[in-house]
Amino acid sequence: MRLAELSERSGVSLATIKYYLRQGLLAPGDRVSATTAEYDESHLRRLRLVRALLQVGRLPVATAKKVLGHVDDESLGRSIRMGAALWELPHGAEPDDDKDEATVAARTEVDRLLERLGWESAREIGALSPVHRSLVVAVATLIRLGYPWDAELMAPYAELMHRAAIRDLDFVETRHSEAERVETAVAAAILFRPALDALHRLAQEEESARRYGL
Amino acid sequence: MRLAELSERSGVSLATIKYYLRQGLLAPGDRVSATTAEYDESHLRRLRLVRALLQVGRLPVATAKKVLGHVDDESLGRSIRMGAALWELPHGAEPDDDKDEATVAARTEVDRLLERLGWESAREIGALSPVHRSLVVAVATLIRLGYPWDAELMAPYAELMHRAAIRDLDFVETRHSEAERVETAVAAAILFRPALDALHRLAQEEESARRYGL
Repeated sequence: MRLAELSERSGVSLATIKYYLRQGLLAPGDRVSATTAEYDESHLRRLRLVRALLQVGRLPVATAKKVLGHVDDESLGRSIRMGAALWELPHGAEPDDDKDEATVAARTEVDRLLERLGWESAREIGALSPVHRSLVVAVATLIRLGYPWDAELMAPYAELMHRAAIRDLDFVETRHSEAERVETAVAAAILFRPALDALHRLAQEEESARRYGL
Repeated sequence: MRLAELSERSGVSLATIKYYLRQGLLAPGDRVSATTAEYDESHLRRLRLVRALLQVGRLPVATAKKVLGHVDDESLGRSIRMGAALWELPHGAEPDDDKDEATVAARTEVDRLLERLGWESAREIGALSPVHRSLVVAVATLIRLGYPWDAELMAPYAELMHRAAIRDLDFVETRHSEAERVETAVAAAILFRPALDALHRLAQEEESARRYGL
């Protein structure tokens, strides 16, 4: 398709597409003449992902480029490629201070939970993963505010999240190419999380109304 | 306990506690003399919640007061009281435009999902609930960006979230007084969500490593 059709089908203005092309967020089309290039479905897909990263994820252009760099890096194995792309996304707060009492206690609690769950890879990657660090921050906040953190209480939640993760990866695997699979994982991380959070809160309202009436 | 002990046990400075007292975020202690007041466990609990609302939830003082007003409103039934307190919390974006094409389509999709799930109360409350509205916004964003929203695909996620919600309410019910139950629900909404999100992403990393290697 030509640029005009790409713009129409994606709902992204010509000026914005040209900006993405200049920034290297979108690969150039196949040049068919001095003034015309041809775009395909992969451009349309990428355009959706760029909008998800910039407009919904509010990533700076430089960070979006890093994410897309990992998405496109065919030299990496699937797990690393997906992980590298996802790790560039914002992950909430980093620990203020590695050695403060609550953070140290939180790290022990998280490790205890992962051991109990048998999540050996997550334990092995440990604090290398920004996701692991953001869990430690969340637990440290609970401890600092005097709320109990209880591995026994949290383990069933973690199991539910694992079942969600299995569905996530099953869905990602329905995609046809490796590039599409990584793109889907990144788009889902940005776009499905708000929907999932809302579903959780809506489920609480539903359950509360069932138990106690409206 | 005296103010000094309340400060020590809560880790909140005297000046900050006095500020909370002046703002009406914390109830005055029992006056035992012209210069001394006595505080109890309920003050300690409330102090934790105020810190969760202000420091972690980053709520403005006026909003925190509204939340606490609902928490303390004994005239309300449990479901309404909990709902009213939770509804004051930030819920992400509101629909920009009620009538734009993607929002209208999203509302239909959400209703279809709720019907399929048999969440009758959630359907009945509908757009009155800010949680319902934030789900519509999340779905509208997916539609606008050209990602599919599939009620069949989402229903099992919603069921997992419902199982989480059942655990949430079971835990809330272990609290002894009605005030504590509502406080716990509010604190959990602010403090456990980041932990749950991190657990979901960590589960994805674990599952990815199991399937594709580290």
